[in-house]
Amino acid sequence: MAHQDNKKDNRQFATELEELLNAGYLTRATTRLATSDPPTIANILEAFPWERRLQIWQLLTPQIKGAVLIELYEEVQDGLIAESLPEDLIKTVSGLDIDDLADLYERLPEKVRAAVLQAMDEKRRQRFEAVRHYPDNTAGGLMDVDAVAVRDDATLDTVLRYLRRIRHQQGALPEHMDAIIVVDRASRYIGMLSLSDLVSLEENCAVSEVMHTESNPIPALTPAKKVARLFEDYDLLSAPVVDEDNKLIGRITVDDVVDVIREEADRALMSTAGLEEESDIFAPIVTSAKRRAIWLGINLINAFLAAWVIEQFEGSIEQLVILAVLMPIVASMGGIAGTQTLTLVIRGIALDQVGPGNIRRVLGKELGVIAINALLFASTVATAMIIWHQDSSLGLVFALALAINLLNGAMAGAIIPFALHKLGIDPALAGGVVLMATTDALGFFTFLGLATFFLL
Amino acid sequence: MAHQDNKKDNRQFATELEELLNAGYLTRATTRLATSDPPTIANILEAFPWERRLQIWQLLTPQIKGAVLIELYEEVQDGLIAESLPEDLIKTVSGLDIDDLADLYERLPEKVRAAVLQAMDEKRRQRFEAVRHYPDNTAGGLMDVDAVAVRDDATLDTVLRYLRRIRHQQGALPEHMDAIIVVDRASRYIGMLSLSDLVSLEENCAVSEVMHTESNPIPALTPAKKVARLFEDYDLLSAPVVDEDNKLIGRITVDDVVDVIREEADRALMSTAGLEEESDIFAPIVTSAKRRAIWLGINLINAFLAAWVIEQFEGSIEQLVILAVLMPIVASMGGIAGTQTLTLVIRGIALDQVGPGNIRRVLGKELGVIAINALLFASTVATAMIIWHQDSSLGLVFALALAINLLNGAMAGAIIPFALHKLGIDPALAGGVVLMATTDALGFFTFLGLATFFLL
Repeated sequence: MAHQDNKKDNRQFATELEELLNAGYLTRATTRLATSDPPTIANILEAFPWERRLQIWQLLTPQIKGAVLIELYEEVQDGLIAESLPEDLIKTVSGLDIDDLADLYERLPEKVRAAVLQAMDEKRRQRFEAVRHYPDNTAGGLMDVDAVAVRDDATLDTVLRYLRRIRHQQGALPEHMDAIIVVDRASRYIGMLSLSDLVSLEENCAVSEVMHTESNPIPALTPAKKVARLFEDYDLLSAPVVDEDNKLIGRITVDDVVDVIREEADRALMSTAGLEEESDIFAPIVTSAKRRAIWLGINLINAFLAAWVIEQFEGSIEQLVILAVLMPIVASMGGIAGTQTLTLVIRGIALDQVGPGNIRRVLGKELGVIAINALLFASTVATAMIIWHQDSSLGLVFALALAINLLNGAMAGAIIPFALHKLGIDPALAGGVVLMATTDALGFFTFLGLATFFLL
Repeated sequence: MAHQDNKKDNRQFATELEELLNAGYLTRATTRLATSDPPTIANILEAFPWERRLQIWQLLTPQIKGAVLIELYEEVQDGLIAESLPEDLIKTVSGLDIDDLADLYERLPEKVRAAVLQAMDEKRRQRFEAVRHYPDNTAGGLMDVDAVAVRDDATLDTVLRYLRRIRHQQGALPEHMDAIIVVDRASRYIGMLSLSDLVSLEENCAVSEVMHTESNPIPALTPAKKVARLFEDYDLLSAPVVDEDNKLIGRITVDDVVDVIREEADRALMSTAGLEEESDIFAPIVTSAKRRAIWLGINLINAFLAAWVIEQFEGSIEQLVILAVLMPIVASMGGIAGTQTLTLVIRGIALDQVGPGNIRRVLGKELGVIAINALLFASTVATAMIIWHQDSSLGLVFALALAINLLNGAMAGAIIPFALHKLGIDPALAGGVVLMATTDALGFFTFLGLATFFLL
């Protein structure tokens, strides 16, 4: 069990499993799955197309299904939920932790939701409602509601007795507990008592003497991204979450934060290719095709815009066909230069390091960098043109247009993210498209315009 | 202190600081910095250009300098190290934790390294050498060597007494301790004793009765990426690291893993724009220009290759200038379609979900998706051509070329990552360039070739 499986190659496990299924050895496949752990099964499921996924899903026990479900991409979760019988789903989700259940809840069928709510005891339902009260992407949505809290006037041996009692009553303490939260009579946050202090200090110390008060609790409405930054910057393992009145309502543990960081990174990478939502590599073909059609459609409009610019110069191209040969070079180099600036600026904004206060400096630096390269590449292409086509005036026009479009690119790359931000559009998603539209249209216009003016 | 500052806007702090520096209020700036914490200062430093960075750096105390230094991008670290006097550097780094010091060590000047080594006592030096023995990007390079271990034949109250003794002797227990590692007489790993068990179970229990043995220790040479996956999948807070003989040599804590995840994600995003190494937005202009010139140069070669393809059809373009107008549309749409497939496949490979075993299935699915869109967009552009230019044969050729290049793109996007992988080249870095070269050259060739064959 546990992370043994991960050390073997997941792909190898997938192959084994597939062979068993192909040969119809369902019992052996079931056994193989039963000796594996939820994260590994989730990973394997995502690597199979849908027919296989459903087949494997049916071989899992309800208990493990729940643990597997919460590890999957939303899209894959939705597919499995849609294919499961309500009775099975109720069994699958009723054993989940409250915060995991809250994440899934909205996407469960009405019937399952009702049954799950009904099966909860009063205390669990209250906790559940507390988590559901906050949006997913906030501290409140991330938190567990099982925080153990003690009062500051207790002594360490009282705390130890209290922990033993909880353990005795509930069978276990909350997972990932590295510290106990200290509150006042009104449940307001005061500080943290670390377990490592609890085990290594004298038992007659008062909690108030040894608690840590230097870090602040996280307000429930703090965005998840910001919570992730706090955990990263301050190397936190867990942090208390409070409401507007500074009352303790839960705690966030680092394992949930790790998921936020990974998801955020995944989204940033996917969105550079217009794939924001497409998490499932084996999403149904028609669903995928629809989503991607939007992106392709936007890009088609861009491409037609650039074509329209070229069309204005048809006469020039007719006279001098070499213009058609060279124009894509000018356009694409501007796009490359712009993408580099764009990527740096978008990251800078995400890290709070680039903002209206220093965007001019960033722009200045980027233009400096590209000016050097514009000189370098303009002289390279001018030389190439003289050697290739023995045409120095063409070479000069080409070089000039290239240099101008490289500068265009850098400028657009620095400005576009801010412009999109003002319009309420995510620069990570739309930045690349807008940039390409700019550098293509301007690149063709500059080159063909200069050529028409100077060469014809 | 602590995360108070992060809640204010970092950009606002930067503005304040800049105003103080501009007005020459150095003492007030120093005080403002002294009331702030290392992660915030590091973030601010990265948001300023070099002259400012050095000015701020000089206002920091040696103690805080060390803590700030380890939070910075390597490139910024190197710049500050190069600008610091050896005596100051020695003070700055000598207070660092062993694993942080090991990360910096190779990049310190010889003189500083010698002095730092000399100042270590025998025990600290041994630990330091143990960490340095392993490459940075392995479990051994990530680990701390301050793991607290107990023997399995101890009882919980012996363990508690032992912890109190360590604390008494060393002033504190290791940071981020959520569990104590259990070893046998020969220091070989056996299991883990969680602090939450230690505080909540009866003190006369034997360690061997309550320890957890279900998870495996991490071998020292496990790649950092894999360590990150283990922590993510199994929600670990810390894990023991062992050598080839299963002997305990250290432990990894989740805060170091979070940094690995963030760096890996950062690298993946940057490399889509050929920016693998450029972490510092204010890197010196000439340094940045040199790095980016490589990427621009590679892309220039690509663009010339595409231009060469176009040149072969100069005669056709001369006869039918509209070909020059439409050809960039065919090329760019293939690039977009290919980038989507490429991004999904690269991520799938990184997650171990796509491999030689199922690449055909992935390719089949991607071709299915793009076939639907090829139909959709081919009929759209054919219709557009008929309306725009009243030319149905041109419309058909354009539509056919577009459809073929969309399929090219999807195929190239699925195959290129594997081809690059075989050649030992990072697909995340080079995939986009190779893809664009393919879709541009094939796009121009297909469209101009079909047009020459059917229309002229």
